[in-house]
Amino acid sequence: MGKEVAGPEIDRLIQLLARLPGLGPRSARRAALHLIRKRNELLAPLADALQKARETIVTCHICGNADSQDPCTLCRDVERDPHTLIVVETVADLWALERAGVLSARYHVLGGTLSPLDGIGPKDINLTRLIERVASGAVQEVILAVSATVDGQATAHYITGQLAEFNIKITRLALGVPVGGELDYLDDGTLAAAIQSRTLF
Amino acid sequence: MGKEVAGPEIDRLIQLLARLPGLGPRSARRAALHLIRKRNELLAPLADALQKARETIVTCHICGNADSQDPCTLCRDVERDPHTLIVVETVADLWALERAGVLSARYHVLGGTLSPLDGIGPKDINLTRLIERVASGAVQEVILAVSATVDGQATAHYITGQLAEFNIKITRLALGVPVGGELDYLDDGTLAAAIQSRTLF
Repeated sequence: MGKEVAGPEIDRLIQLLARLPGLGPRSARRAALHLIRKRNELLAPLADALQKARETIVTCHICGNADSQDPCTLCRDVERDPHTLIVVETVADLWALERAGVLSARYHVLGGTLSPLDGIGPKDINLTRLIERVASGAVQEVILAVSATVDGQATAHYITGQLAEFNIKITRLALGVPVGGELDYLDDGTLAAAIQSRTLF
Repeated sequence: MGKEVAGPEIDRLIQLLARLPGLGPRSARRAALHLIRKRNELLAPLADALQKARETIVTCHICGNADSQDPCTLCRDVERDPHTLIVVETVADLWALERAGVLSARYHVLGGTLSPLDGIGPKDINLTRLIERVASGAVQEVILAVSATVDGQATAHYITGQLAEFNIKITRLALGVPVGGELDYLDDGTLAAAIQSRTLF
């Protein structure tokens, strides 16, 4: 909408906003109007921030993280344990683990999972660099923090095979009941895994 | 989050995106990552579109619409009936009526409703210009297309009083059952209005 009503500039803005995850055509219109109303407080700073992001953000050639410097902030951080490497699917997963703040380790972002049905093979994800990093010798443990989905687990299996020749520990995330989760709402697979991996109280 | 993880540029982008209506902190992070991943297809065009919107979009001095030209596209459109003026609260309401496409009339955007409790009086909304437009003589009917809320109806009453001296017809939107609405889910006020204003079948 908006073609004859609001001019091509607003129309284009709405179209682009609607392509953000979480925004549909209706909320994109609301967002556009909000931006127009808050021109100085929001529209201008957002335009600048996007321009800056476009100019500065690069993919770290070591771990695949998104940052404004390469190597990224995490790879430059000498305080982080260089012996533990957490393998994640996406930058979003890396951020989630950092928010949880459990381990001050190194990361490796695959950028996806193997998915033969979608034509995504080992060459399409950031695997070669992972093997190089392990081969270089510092890594003692690789934690496969991939999704507990079919594709995620297949990817974990494949990586385990590729890293078999190196003398390192390969671990994966525990399966079980999520904190705060009610048993009644959990699927059979999660419950079975939680029973099988039960721990002493 | 993201301060030590992803650098200040990404952090700033997430903060600004989270201020858009419909996006919370979590979806703002997802949107930011989506933008970074789709740098050429989405980030760059959106940065440009915002920059262009910032430079070009103005408020029409006649009707209060947002457009890239002043007078706006609707005010310039000579095909529109100059005798009928639809008064709306916001540009979003104007767009909604244009999407419905019922009437090819002129608009007047108030930019809000009177709200004594919030300290919004007649001088804070676009009323003076409305009275000027009516006084100039072309308008024969003013349709008060304001919300069926307390503030909306109070605003409609106030405007009716201000326009009493002019020899014009003042109408308001019909109250009743929304198309597709199920009676069971409607409030008492709507049902009462729909019964009172019942029409011959």
